[in-house]
Amino acid sequence: MEIEDKNNLREDAESIFYAGLEAVEPSKAVRTYMKKTHNTLKIGETVYNLSDLKRIFVVGFGKAGYPMAKTVEEILEDKITQGCVVVKYGYSGHLEKIEILESSHPIPDEAGMKAAEKIISLLSKTKEDDLVICLISGGGSAILPAPIEGISLEEKQKVTQLLLDCGASIEEINTIRKHLSRVKGGQLARLTYPAHLHSLILSDVVGDRLDTIASGPTVPDRTTFKDCWEIVKKYELESLLPQSVITHLRRGIEGKIKETPKPGEPIFDRVNNLIIGSNILALKAAKRKAENLGYNCLILSSFVEGETREVARVHAAMAKEIISSGNPISPPACILSGGETTVKVKGKGKGGRNQEFSLAACIDIRGMNNTLILSAGTDGTDGPTDAAGAFATGSTWRKAKEMGILPEEFLENNDSYNFFKKVGGLFLTGPTNTNVMDLRIILVAEKNQSK
Amino acid sequence: MEIEDKNNLREDAESIFYAGLEAVEPSKAVRTYMKKTHNTLKIGETVYNLSDLKRIFVVGFGKAGYPMAKTVEEILEDKITQGCVVVKYGYSGHLEKIEILESSHPIPDEAGMKAAEKIISLLSKTKEDDLVICLISGGGSAILPAPIEGISLEEKQKVTQLLLDCGASIEEINTIRKHLSRVKGGQLARLTYPAHLHSLILSDVVGDRLDTIASGPTVPDRTTFKDCWEIVKKYELESLLPQSVITHLRRGIEGKIKETPKPGEPIFDRVNNLIIGSNILALKAAKRKAENLGYNCLILSSFVEGETREVARVHAAMAKEIISSGNPISPPACILSGGETTVKVKGKGKGGRNQEFSLAACIDIRGMNNTLILSAGTDGTDGPTDAAGAFATGSTWRKAKEMGILPEEFLENNDSYNFFKKVGGLFLTGPTNTNVMDLRIILVAEKNQSK
Repeated sequence: MEIEDKNNLREDAESIFYAGLEAVEPSKAVRTYMKKTHNTLKIGETVYNLSDLKRIFVVGFGKAGYPMAKTVEEILEDKITQGCVVVKYGYSGHLEKIEILESSHPIPDEAGMKAAEKIISLLSKTKEDDLVICLISGGGSAILPAPIEGISLEEKQKVTQLLLDCGASIEEINTIRKHLSRVKGGQLARLTYPAHLHSLILSDVVGDRLDTIASGPTVPDRTTFKDCWEIVKKYELESLLPQSVITHLRRGIEGKIKETPKPGEPIFDRVNNLIIGSNILALKAAKRKAENLGYNCLILSSFVEGETREVARVHAAMAKEIISSGNPISPPACILSGGETTVKVKGKGKGGRNQEFSLAACIDIRGMNNTLILSAGTDGTDGPTDAAGAFATGSTWRKAKEMGILPEEFLENNDSYNFFKKVGGLFLTGPTNTNVMDLRIILVAEKNQSK
Repeated sequence: MEIEDKNNLREDAESIFYAGLEAVEPSKAVRTYMKKTHNTLKIGETVYNLSDLKRIFVVGFGKAGYPMAKTVEEILEDKITQGCVVVKYGYSGHLEKIEILESSHPIPDEAGMKAAEKIISLLSKTKEDDLVICLISGGGSAILPAPIEGISLEEKQKVTQLLLDCGASIEEINTIRKHLSRVKGGQLARLTYPAHLHSLILSDVVGDRLDTIASGPTVPDRTTFKDCWEIVKKYELESLLPQSVITHLRRGIEGKIKETPKPGEPIFDRVNNLIIGSNILALKAAKRKAENLGYNCLILSSFVEGETREVARVHAAMAKEIISSGNPISPPACILSGGETTVKVKGKGKGGRNQEFSLAACIDIRGMNNTLILSAGTDGTDGPTDAAGAFATGSTWRKAKEMGILPEEFLENNDSYNFFKKVGGLFLTGPTNTNVMDLRIILVAEKNQSK
């Protein structure tokens, strides 16, 4: 039996991961932030007097839409007048008051456009004393496509592709997309005004920027038609973009089309945006669990990005220092990090960024007793595999070598899934119904913990 | 004036860096660990009774040999019988008792071999009641070449080159080198036995492994002639290596040549190895300074390796989290890291790993107030430039853009030196006479510190 097993490091890592996951489980997250009494509805710090509200509507879009809507229905019961929430194909279910529609992700489709029409028409019915609860989660932008009149879905997709091809940044792409949409960039808030609007948001982007999650339908937009035009000129796209798009942007600059709502506009006095699930919230819950298990724990960052194997090396370097000098914290130590790394695929193997992280880490932590690293995606899926991630310990490398398997070769071939399938260490959770990117857990037990 | 300047972040980063540097300055480091009273000489925790010691010899090799030897002479005064310390060309000076010789680095030369002969002959004179103080610092392995009889310097170099070319690991290269040398791999300790041997070591390698620094001349060697032969077979080098080398290794396997001294051999009862300067010691001193300046401070790791720009991203991610949630520590925050990153050079620009680190970081921390990152080499030299490193702040990126300079392009071209020369931020220290790799300092001031 390995020393790591004796220390139950693997078991501890699993419970720490699941504690993080539980905090951002859509249903749990809604319940944490939404409380109803006989007379009031409290969402976050905002208290609505139920007798002041004429009607309550529920709209939403994103992969986690169904469990979020289900919970809202359970909490509000018969208080909901009407609702419409759009989810990805296969993610739906039946509810009493809220209609659940399905559409396509990541490539939007006609069904998504029809669903958007339905939501827009529902919002047009709302009045000053109404409350609209808007449930936003990952994938919401593709799931609810609402191109402006005169531009087809295909044309809008062509624009995105052209921008990607010319190397435009994600900020530049979003600037243009917001100005070709009827809901993105705060425009859903405008459609809702003067009703109250309260968004419950499950963030799947690094940094949790409200104007980025699902393209910020309920937040002020700082970008303008003028910015769009500068991007068109910068990448010399004037002759490449569909004529309908050029015409629309031109009319926008000429002031013939209303800008997206800007910061300070009165619309937003009636709007509340509340993040109910995010990577940092998962990390904080994971930290509480780790501390309950007796670990000294620190959260490194929820903003971690970059090439997976290099990021893994920095994490392994921390494990080494914990053992060597007790910095940044002394054993039993738990370091948590989040965010989402990338993999520049060069090989032909099977894997995902989390399994590749653990594979790279196992090379650097080889021979280190009492050390375990777990990297896993909170959505339960890592790349095109059935695993959420993988465990690496100080003995994984040696174990592989003894089996005649070379970790370095599997890493070179981006074949992390087959590596851990052979050597052991795959972490399988099944679908989790949520997504706040990845969690990484480094555990270093006390030297003599196993004695 | 930038907000960072108002906060004196740059000034703070400089003093934190210099505090780290001071702790590992060769002369200071020797003084910290070597104390003489009328009757005793204390080195680290070991106390030598001066009346028990017949004679004291001083030997040494490495770039910092001169200032180390000078300080030992100042402390021991007339107690030294004889000494010989070898340094890199241009790094020498004149001393009373200890002869300073020069040789070549990183490519060894004849002068180095002659110097090695001198040291070996000096050690052969030592007796049981003598003390040999051995001063080891970076570059010591090349500066003191001592190939075994029958193998020329050129042949030994050819072996190293062949091993590098076939992709052998640094551990494999060192295994063979130790078995072709008369001093490496603990053999200097054997030459000194039964005299007392006390090494004072300035470490320039990640992890401070004693068997790696200067190829471990005073520490037990776990590798064997058998290991050497397996490496020869693994890379199919039998027909490529010089005949003299093959013959030597064959005789080694046959037991006709003495193995390098192994752990547990009585030789090592008379040996003490003491690290007096290292990356972690510099980081610890830097941390004390940061705390004195009022920062919450943590040492991330002295083991940081990997591709520079990716490592920089992880550091920037920490700065973001400090600002966003106060994790892993709240502002005013200082995060320190050490080690040595690498740069896969693709461009034709001028720079070094530290300046490239700061250039990559300035892209990720753009727009972040109260944030500064300094990365610098403790030897005062970063790549083929006159700078030790560079400062990046939250406004560096914008400042560059306003000057029409694109940070992303300079990074792509590995042209960090010219970037910071134009935009400002080069950190110039001049030569420091020491080397414990790099120090990185992240500072995040309190939000309202500047008000």
